[in-house]
Amino acid sequence: MKKNHLLTPGPTPVPAEVLLCMANPIIHHRTPEYEEIFAQVKKGLAALFQTRQDVLVLSSSGTGAMEAAVINLLSAGDTALVVNAGKFGKRWADICRAFKVNTEIIEVAWGQAVHPQAVADALKANPQIKAVFTTHSETSTGVLHDIKTIAAIVAGYPETVLVVDAITALGATAVPMDDWGLDVVVTGSQKALMMPPGLACIALSQKAWKLTETSQLPKYYFDLKKEKKSQAKNQTAYTPAISLIIALRKSLSMIEQEGLSKVHRRHQLLAEATRSAVAALGLELLAPESPSPALTAVKSPPGVEVSALRGLLSKKYGVTIAGGQDHLKGKIFRIAHLGYMSTFDTIIAVSALEMALKELGHPVQLGTGVKAAQKILINL
Amino acid sequence: MKKNHLLTPGPTPVPAEVLLCMANPIIHHRTPEYEEIFAQVKKGLAALFQTRQDVLVLSSSGTGAMEAAVINLLSAGDTALVVNAGKFGKRWADICRAFKVNTEIIEVAWGQAVHPQAVADALKANPQIKAVFTTHSETSTGVLHDIKTIAAIVAGYPETVLVVDAITALGATAVPMDDWGLDVVVTGSQKALMMPPGLACIALSQKAWKLTETSQLPKYYFDLKKEKKSQAKNQTAYTPAISLIIALRKSLSMIEQEGLSKVHRRHQLLAEATRSAVAALGLELLAPESPSPALTAVKSPPGVEVSALRGLLSKKYGVTIAGGQDHLKGKIFRIAHLGYMSTFDTIIAVSALEMALKELGHPVQLGTGVKAAQKILINL
Repeated sequence: MKKNHLLTPGPTPVPAEVLLCMANPIIHHRTPEYEEIFAQVKKGLAALFQTRQDVLVLSSSGTGAMEAAVINLLSAGDTALVVNAGKFGKRWADICRAFKVNTEIIEVAWGQAVHPQAVADALKANPQIKAVFTTHSETSTGVLHDIKTIAAIVAGYPETVLVVDAITALGATAVPMDDWGLDVVVTGSQKALMMPPGLACIALSQKAWKLTETSQLPKYYFDLKKEKKSQAKNQTAYTPAISLIIALRKSLSMIEQEGLSKVHRRHQLLAEATRSAVAALGLELLAPESPSPALTAVKSPPGVEVSALRGLLSKKYGVTIAGGQDHLKGKIFRIAHLGYMSTFDTIIAVSALEMALKELGHPVQLGTGVKAAQKILINL
Repeated sequence: MKKNHLLTPGPTPVPAEVLLCMANPIIHHRTPEYEEIFAQVKKGLAALFQTRQDVLVLSSSGTGAMEAAVINLLSAGDTALVVNAGKFGKRWADICRAFKVNTEIIEVAWGQAVHPQAVADALKANPQIKAVFTTHSETSTGVLHDIKTIAAIVAGYPETVLVVDAITALGATAVPMDDWGLDVVVTGSQKALMMPPGLACIALSQKAWKLTETSQLPKYYFDLKKEKKSQAKNQTAYTPAISLIIALRKSLSMIEQEGLSKVHRRHQLLAEATRSAVAALGLELLAPESPSPALTAVKSPPGVEVSALRGLLSKKYGVTIAGGQDHLKGKIFRIAHLGYMSTFDTIIAVSALEMALKELGHPVQLGTGVKAAQKILINL
């Protein structure tokens, strides 16, 4: 008997209550019953995005919603500023370039947060910039960017919008779209929403909706104006992923029941506990300065192969953690605190890490990390 | 206690065995376990498409795969020929136009099949046509087009491809992609695949892959060359809808177990039984000449409001059928034979129809349609 523990920053574990929603007989979406469900989903998403704008649901991965942001706001030849501080920051640049948007990049070392001043300088230097694209929580490095400050900077430019990939941030930390003045917020279902992958969500400010009026990039499946019209009537432009929508209603109601600030605090404490354990074990964080509450990226200690560590954790302990991506492959491992995670998921993560490191010959005093984590988790 | 019977041409009923797959704990997709599942899905899809080409899976509705076909084959300013014989034929034209493709239309009265000769004439008249877009089974009218003959015509043009929306055809009738020489075949999960909506599939011939080398339309999420590369390694370019993929493996294995020709014969007989019942009840088919085995469209008899009929069926009998779309709204109703449907689903459809018509004051001798259906269904 081996119990499996999914501790990756997406996909994340899905509560049985949510999984079971998907085992119900499928219903037709052109029915009052479905429309009532969709109305509840919209309400739950608006609470999560902390916005009075419409949060639109798309049947796609989070990347689909990222593409939707680019193609609905911009035209070929427009200029965009992209904060590239990891794999998902780079994705904004890749999408912009695929659609022939002039793309200026702020390059940030992977593991560091962008200096908001760098955004201010870039905007000042180039008044052509129509949109700033950034991640909030960078999943590839475990960094949380200071979106509040960046938003205040972009707000000074009446013709420029801020587009935020909050795919691992939303639900793990506060993303108060309206209060901070974020123009576009994008997320995916398989992160803090405690859902399987397959749905993406996107919300636009009035400033961003105004840009959709002039955008010339061709679009059909991801046409947000068409979606806005349909979703106002609790429908979607095309057949929605019905079973996922129904499951989402359940997961959103679980988030509502726990209370958003408690959900955020839980993520925060799990992350702090993990970081404290990592320090107690003498390991080094990739992003000690601006850590995300969604996940913790840890440098693999000398002599320990990440692939061997992950393999042992998976095979012997049923614990799945993530490795590094792109040039961080083999250099770091990533432990998530994302979504349906609580005290003992973190205890499992730290405990399994200790045992596996010891088995791989790395000097570890068993229980040291667990003890450090417990000291923090007792407050949860 | 009211039992629900979903008899619409998408979404369609999902077997409990498939639904329960989605209630299993989520697994990570970057694992050998997932890759083995995906490999089986690819094999099952290739058998269904009757092709040796790769069948690619996308996380989107069927419309997403339709868009993928257009943007991966063509460039703005290219010329396409579209067969518009219903709502979904029209969608090809809408997508082509959204991407600034010159779009020639063959207009066909809704309820009729296109004359293959019309395609031959159009191709002869305009050598610029790079792609012919058509539906196979038109869901809005219940017509099955003669794709085999059309494919033979298009095959005579070495620079022109045939793109087939087989969203309701595939699995309901034979779509032998390689044998017929179809260049692109598109489907969605919520039809004969006996799955919830949320996945789409697309396969390209070598002739179509060649066109992807010159296509200039911008693309990112639906970039099929990138997907082909990833899916060759049993991965996807972006996070897949994992739970739907796992469910799809199950539904494909059920199709394989029944045997594809038996699956097609089942659809054929359910459709014939329904048509026979409709005739016995003195009702008129919308598409008597080229009926699809996926669904049957019936003209509402004088004095019977489609909305009243559908409402009564739904409220009193728990039977959901579809109405007409666009200009056929209020004029027809549609009964599906699509996917997880067997003898008694058709008996239920006919029986409920008889009872509801009688209750609405239409002269019906109860049991007449059922008897006609039984005579055919006894052979299944």
